[in-house]
Amino acid sequence: MFGDIKFVCVGGSPNRMRAFAQFMHRELGLAGDGEELADICAGTDRYAMYRVGPVLSISHGMGIPSISIMLHELIKLLHHARCRDVTIIRIGTSGGLGVEAGSVVITDTALDSSFKPRFEQAVLGEVVVRSTELDKDLAQELLACSKEIPDFPTLIGHTMCTYDFYEGQGRLDGALCSFSSEKKLEYLRRAYDAGVRNIEMESTAFAALCGLCGLRAAVVCVTLLDRLEGDQIRAPRALLGEFQRRPQRLIAAFIRKRLGVQPQTPLPTP
Amino acid sequence: MFGDIKFVCVGGSPNRMRAFAQFMHRELGLAGDGEELADICAGTDRYAMYRVGPVLSISHGMGIPSISIMLHELIKLLHHARCRDVTIIRIGTSGGLGVEAGSVVITDTALDSSFKPRFEQAVLGEVVVRSTELDKDLAQELLACSKEIPDFPTLIGHTMCTYDFYEGQGRLDGALCSFSSEKKLEYLRRAYDAGVRNIEMESTAFAALCGLCGLRAAVVCVTLLDRLEGDQIRAPRALLGEFQRRPQRLIAAFIRKRLGVQPQTPLPTP
Repeated sequence: MFGDIKFVCVGGSPNRMRAFAQFMHRELGLAGDGEELADICAGTDRYAMYRVGPVLSISHGMGIPSISIMLHELIKLLHHARCRDVTIIRIGTSGGLGVEAGSVVITDTALDSSFKPRFEQAVLGEVVVRSTELDKDLAQELLACSKEIPDFPTLIGHTMCTYDFYEGQGRLDGALCSFSSEKKLEYLRRAYDAGVRNIEMESTAFAALCGLCGLRAAVVCVTLLDRLEGDQIRAPRALLGEFQRRPQRLIAAFIRKRLGVQPQTPLPTP
Repeated sequence: MFGDIKFVCVGGSPNRMRAFAQFMHRELGLAGDGEELADICAGTDRYAMYRVGPVLSISHGMGIPSISIMLHELIKLLHHARCRDVTIIRIGTSGGLGVEAGSVVITDTALDSSFKPRFEQAVLGEVVVRSTELDKDLAQELLACSKEIPDFPTLIGHTMCTYDFYEGQGRLDGALCSFSSEKKLEYLRRAYDAGVRNIEMESTAFAALCGLCGLRAAVVCVTLLDRLEGDQIRAPRALLGEFQRRPQRLIAAFIRKRLGVQPQTPLPTP
């Protein structure tokens, strides 16, 4: 059933990964309108999975533990189905650092909250350190694709990955906050100086596990705000929706190009 | 809208927390059959939340980062609604250690993967260590409730909390495994000797955050298998469903007792 899968796209939200599958269905010019795509994981409410031609679209929930369980199960599935030359891409949202809201960041290396390019995995109570570098050629290929889409701010940079959204990312608006606005900005500026251009919650584990298992992997996240300017998203709802579709549009363009498929419909404009 | 909330029950799966809300609705003898309960978080697919009288039932997804985001937002909500004397209970599933499958473990202290009673939170890139003790009186009150339910194996013990399900819990059946069956069993036996009776993925962060914010908190998880005997769940599907309802039955009995409500229907038997 899965032997001819060539692309796996993963993202946090089940609704967004369903929307991506439907968008991919139209972009590949497949029969029907894609509204009837069935969730292959419908028996569980842990993840959602859709198949569109050679593309799987899967949700992974929020954070490293949640994506890690999904990746173990996905990699076993790809192995048993004898899939070859699979490219896996995480598409998501993130907080930006020193870049305009709506920018798409293609990650070259994922960093932990100390700005180190590593993922620490506890194995039988001992910490094992793993590399979090992503595929450089794939990142360049995605950047080249982005240049063909008009008005599509895209850059390659480091992505910081944290274990939570509030204290771990220096937010002042959680239930707890033990630091000042000055300390927060000092930390975020140090992150910027270390090359971090966006912050999310899955990239280190994703890069480490895909790398160890020999999958070519990329992380493509849009920034919803510039954290150097605040903690609250200020973009209007419609613009935010357009921002969230940007990683989907870039990946659709990339997959079409790889498969030699012409665009089926005009690209949506902002 | 939320000022009179006295109990918050949280668990990983949206479907299970919906089922718990419907069960609680019947147990409290409220009007209607509870089938029409609306998801208060229906605008997002991150979490599901249901309200039943003074009880909130909320899903938190899988793992520490996911539950941590939900708890920050919940605690802000309870604060703004001026709720007082709130008891919060995580109900879930877990792997057992040296206890019969189907046993319900009430956590006294959550331990990390080195068997230490601590939660390490990164704050602005520095690690802050937090206590993971839970409310001892509440644990005893829950244990007393369990004794009034026939055929209901329940114990108080330590719960180990890990950042992933496969390597972090010493499973041999993930996509990656770098250790032998002997090393795995040696690790799990050391955990047992340290007082661990079950393993899950949220309790340290839950205990730490609730403790710091002054919420009386408990963790009540059923064990689906004994990890000293294997990695695969062997209980038949129907029995597994009955196991998963055990924490719900115990918490319903506890809340009824606190509220002075008589059972509305006979308790389901296994």
